[in-house]
Amino acid sequence: MKVIRAVAQLRDIVHTEKKNGQTIGFVPTMGFLHEGHITLAKQARKENDVVIMSIFVNPLQFGPNEDYERYPRDPEHDTELAKSCGVDYLFMPSVDDMYPDEPAVVLTVKKRTNALCGLKREGHFDGVATVVLKLFHMTEPDKAYFGKKDAQQLAVIYGLVDSLNVSVTIVGVDTVREKDGLAKSSRNVYLLPEEREKAPAIYNALSHAREALEAGEINVERLREQAIDYLRDHSGAEVEYVEILSYPELEPVRKVERMIIIAAAVQYKNARLIDNVILTMEGGASCFEQ
Amino acid sequence: MKVIRAVAQLRDIVHTEKKNGQTIGFVPTMGFLHEGHITLAKQARKENDVVIMSIFVNPLQFGPNEDYERYPRDPEHDTELAKSCGVDYLFMPSVDDMYPDEPAVVLTVKKRTNALCGLKREGHFDGVATVVLKLFHMTEPDKAYFGKKDAQQLAVIYGLVDSLNVSVTIVGVDTVREKDGLAKSSRNVYLLPEEREKAPAIYNALSHAREALEAGEINVERLREQAIDYLRDHSGAEVEYVEILSYPELEPVRKVERMIIIAAAVQYKNARLIDNVILTMEGGASCFEQ
Repeated sequence: MKVIRAVAQLRDIVHTEKKNGQTIGFVPTMGFLHEGHITLAKQARKENDVVIMSIFVNPLQFGPNEDYERYPRDPEHDTELAKSCGVDYLFMPSVDDMYPDEPAVVLTVKKRTNALCGLKREGHFDGVATVVLKLFHMTEPDKAYFGKKDAQQLAVIYGLVDSLNVSVTIVGVDTVREKDGLAKSSRNVYLLPEEREKAPAIYNALSHAREALEAGEINVERLREQAIDYLRDHSGAEVEYVEILSYPELEPVRKVERMIIIAAAVQYKNARLIDNVILTMEGGASCFEQ
Repeated sequence: MKVIRAVAQLRDIVHTEKKNGQTIGFVPTMGFLHEGHITLAKQARKENDVVIMSIFVNPLQFGPNEDYERYPRDPEHDTELAKSCGVDYLFMPSVDDMYPDEPAVVLTVKKRTNALCGLKREGHFDGVATVVLKLFHMTEPDKAYFGKKDAQQLAVIYGLVDSLNVSVTIVGVDTVREKDGLAKSSRNVYLLPEEREKAPAIYNALSHAREALEAGEINVERLREQAIDYLRDHSGAEVEYVEILSYPELEPVRKVERMIIIAAAVQYKNARLIDNVILTMEGGASCFEQ
């Protein structure tokens, strides 16, 4: 595995690999790798000739009061992990190389942001879209891998690729969970021991709502309230939201059909955690509107 | 030459050509081709294995009071001309295929628009950047060709490519002129006969200013005023602006060094015309500030 720090060097390598007819799988990350990332890399390894992983904590997607400075970082351990799961090129650029100047062109995400984390994290998805598009241009991937845990991010990326005709296949990969159901996240390290114990309640709340929907419940507002109550009683966190929406549009569910996301965000003392389940419904019972 | 109307078909062709190791030269146009476009195509023909030309009158870059509806169109003649200058693929998409939905992600140009045409044509360069990036994604060119006549557009494209790390070489091609100096433009057909006769005054005014700069004049504000006076006296048009700026930054000239653009826009009865000269100065005399 080769570690690359300069954008120009990456471009040269990508150019050569493409010229040689190699397919490229790309796994963008912010590092502090865990099993979720490794699952992405392993799937990329299976499906492509060359695997590029990027590690870049993108300042553009953090708000002024968010955790950019203290976002966890461990480049040495990351390098070992990336190597062990078959990454060919690990791209770890500097902020200066990614953003040498005030950008002349910025991206604004107009859809799928007026819900879930988009409501609280103003500009977050603009920053995500910008860095992802830059990274796509640098790596020219055939396929790019994103975790479904960041379901709104994935929905925004689908929108980005469609709107701008980016020539890449987006692969959404299932969330990897701890044995007790807690979604793997780089931010889990910030949970206090008693918080960690209660955190599986997030996935439990989502699972209960899913089961009810699958069993024929059509009152999505009642399900939402039940999930919020459950989280208040069991998670030990402040509940930011629970939403049940169409996916990937992230609009109110009027009929239980096609893809539906049940998503939650909660705030622990030092960590804001998100999780979701996405389900595909047959049939089409009308819902009580939210 | 193959005429292509569907985005999906273009993508297939580009995919195949790239796979076969062919280099792609791309010439984006709005059609109603004239010698300026042909010069772009011929240069692309010389420098690439495959030449793609697009003809698309992009509604996104026209303001509500601009000439989108009556922008001149002649697809049959364009097809003949494109064929004659060695274009391999002529891409003529529909508006619905280019913009099937309200876009989820939009581009905003933050630099180089606060001058020249950008002041009067709000949102114009956002529309240009969006369509050009979409077309780049569809055609995946090694080189893309733009006329220097639309100098601000070219400056914005340089900014777009730099900011978003687009993997393409932008080639700026010299303005093609009529024998009397008038820059070739699709909009010239809308000049009344007496306007056409006076229109070479635009290039004359710019040339006089260039000569004065090259002869050592450093008072750019005086040159600007002289050019405006000349245009008022000789062009038979309403003068929208004359500006002397750094290029491609489009900022006030403080020293006569590096690249400088002298640009003008005038309004005839049925046609707004622009023109410019770009010069590279040695030395570095301080200028009277504008």
